[in-house]
Amino acid sequence: MKITYHLIQEEKNTKARLGKIETNYGVVETPMFMPVGTRATVKMLTPEELYEMHSGVILANTYHLWLRPGEDLIEKAGGLHQFMNYHGPILTDSGGFQVFSLAKPKDITEEGVYFKSHIDGAKLFLTPEKSIEIQNKLDSDIAMSFDECPPASATHEYMKKSVERTLRWAERGKKVHQNPNQSLFGIVQGGAYPDLRKFSAIETVKLDFDGYSIGGVANDNESKEDMYKAIDYSIPYLPKDKPRYLMGVGEPADIVEGVIRGIDMFDCVLPTRIARHGNAFTKHGKMNLKNAQYKEDFTPIEEDCDCYTCKNYTKAYIRHLLNVEESLGGRLLSIHNIRFLIRLTEELRKAIKENRILEYREEFYQNYPKD
Amino acid sequence: MKITYHLIQEEKNTKARLGKIETNYGVVETPMFMPVGTRATVKMLTPEELYEMHSGVILANTYHLWLRPGEDLIEKAGGLHQFMNYHGPILTDSGGFQVFSLAKPKDITEEGVYFKSHIDGAKLFLTPEKSIEIQNKLDSDIAMSFDECPPASATHEYMKKSVERTLRWAERGKKVHQNPNQSLFGIVQGGAYPDLRKFSAIETVKLDFDGYSIGGVANDNESKEDMYKAIDYSIPYLPKDKPRYLMGVGEPADIVEGVIRGIDMFDCVLPTRIARHGNAFTKHGKMNLKNAQYKEDFTPIEEDCDCYTCKNYTKAYIRHLLNVEESLGGRLLSIHNIRFLIRLTEELRKAIKENRILEYREEFYQNYPKD
Repeated sequence: MKITYHLIQEEKNTKARLGKIETNYGVVETPMFMPVGTRATVKMLTPEELYEMHSGVILANTYHLWLRPGEDLIEKAGGLHQFMNYHGPILTDSGGFQVFSLAKPKDITEEGVYFKSHIDGAKLFLTPEKSIEIQNKLDSDIAMSFDECPPASATHEYMKKSVERTLRWAERGKKVHQNPNQSLFGIVQGGAYPDLRKFSAIETVKLDFDGYSIGGVANDNESKEDMYKAIDYSIPYLPKDKPRYLMGVGEPADIVEGVIRGIDMFDCVLPTRIARHGNAFTKHGKMNLKNAQYKEDFTPIEEDCDCYTCKNYTKAYIRHLLNVEESLGGRLLSIHNIRFLIRLTEELRKAIKENRILEYREEFYQNYPKD
Repeated sequence: MKITYHLIQEEKNTKARLGKIETNYGVVETPMFMPVGTRATVKMLTPEELYEMHSGVILANTYHLWLRPGEDLIEKAGGLHQFMNYHGPILTDSGGFQVFSLAKPKDITEEGVYFKSHIDGAKLFLTPEKSIEIQNKLDSDIAMSFDECPPASATHEYMKKSVERTLRWAERGKKVHQNPNQSLFGIVQGGAYPDLRKFSAIETVKLDFDGYSIGGVANDNESKEDMYKAIDYSIPYLPKDKPRYLMGVGEPADIVEGVIRGIDMFDCVLPTRIARHGNAFTKHGKMNLKNAQYKEDFTPIEEDCDCYTCKNYTKAYIRHLLNVEESLGGRLLSIHNIRFLIRLTEELRKAIKENRILEYREEFYQNYPKD
């Protein structure tokens, strides 16, 4: 079964919207945050821990799984859900972002991208068809079209050519897409150029995907302004009856801003990455648990947080774990941080329901520091 | 409340015995295996995961906690149970073993041991009184006397002096022990010398402790034969109404042999340590999950194992996690390995109940390779 998006309510004063998505693995509410399980594991966590955080969709990375352990092995295991024991919906990216950010592309051609493996330098070639074929075998619930992710600094001329090629790649991918239980999303590119975002959105929608992403907003050096522009220039041209996914975004403030601008889905490695460096999200900004001030602080990270970590552990204990390099520290912080972002989307959904999302944003920034 | 040991049944054909220990945190059955939480965390695991494995007592290391975060901080947190969120019984060692094995002692005097911190080389001094004072503050359910752990190669002359000093240290420690909720164990030393084990056992028992350990059997280069001798030479002189603890032992075969020789309690870092290197205990010996033969093995580590790992994950998935260095791999193996040793003691208890522990050993060795 493919996913079905149901628009429940549009917020009165903004583009924010409440919705739900039916999937093969249950119904999820939007806006939602999707934890990232790069290599078929959300770092340090079990599926049960994710369910307890009310995770809906989680992500896995096609590029990484293609290289190790390979899509054929995962297919033999019965697909990604079976392989990693996650019985909720899974979304796979196309590999495009990693190819352009991690693998240092050698050569972008009309056919596809030649590049070197970030593991052993082996020469690899990824095409729109290959990306879809891999994702078909991974058997995720949602697959992404293979796109080029040009840097934010790309010229209008380059960006135009890139957007046109990404459209041709999207069409090629859609043609070979076969898995009847997998939905396929198109990706809107175009940087911070209004005309290119509009063009990309309109033309991508013509190809008729099951959902639409806004890409190219989580590149290095991307400014928040450019991110908001990318959303604002794209959203008006996307159909209301399909979900909209802002790729790679997960700063709490960006989730609030994205929701207000009409985004339904977010993903980001941030909550687990900052956890491994000793940081926790809080309503008052990031907290570094390694700081000496928490040495004898026998209170939880956030008193009103309902996560496993805050219900059971003190800052002093987590600081001790980080200090002696015990991995439970990063695990407890990962649990808190993912739950923090999921709770944020729960609060945003409530604010949409009550048509008070602008007030919610006000309240949010009263505590949370602006960059 | 101090612990109370109840002897339930002596096995007909051996020295093996079934018992239970009442503690401040519930009743535990013996023989039992105690997972080690060196730095107030059983590596990679939460208390809930330990409960699910039917853990009883867990260990924590006085030496490590003394250095970081310090016993005063743990006392302020409300003791070790509160600090680490483990609501089962906890045993702390005396620090002696680490001082002699890890910290490279500078000087052993009658008063105590001068040595260097393994973290920063700081000069430290640990005495029997200090060890007990630290353990009193940690508020474990069972504390250990401070002892010298001479190498297996020590001469009879040296070992005799050492045993005598350890007895004087045990007496000094007992005098300053104050925590009314904490039991105190004495430690029998004497290497593989029959007369010294006998002397040490008789004299330690005269001091009247709540339980007795057999120490000096988990040093480097200690042979299995010497370990069995150390047990056999000590056990006859230990009272039947007190628990007997073989320190630092956790190889499956050694647990079987120890139980048959009259041991009630075991602890070892082995299950978590070998897990971090990709190894699993099985009834057929150790299995290295990194081996290529498990690449497409979509069966659990052990089909008949009831642990979380075996109920939910395949060898192929665990191998993938190890291969891409995702920490969930070591965590899943730790769960299996600790549960393996706990299940082993469950089976041993059943075999004692049925007076068929020698048959059990036969069956065990039919599968498990002898060293």
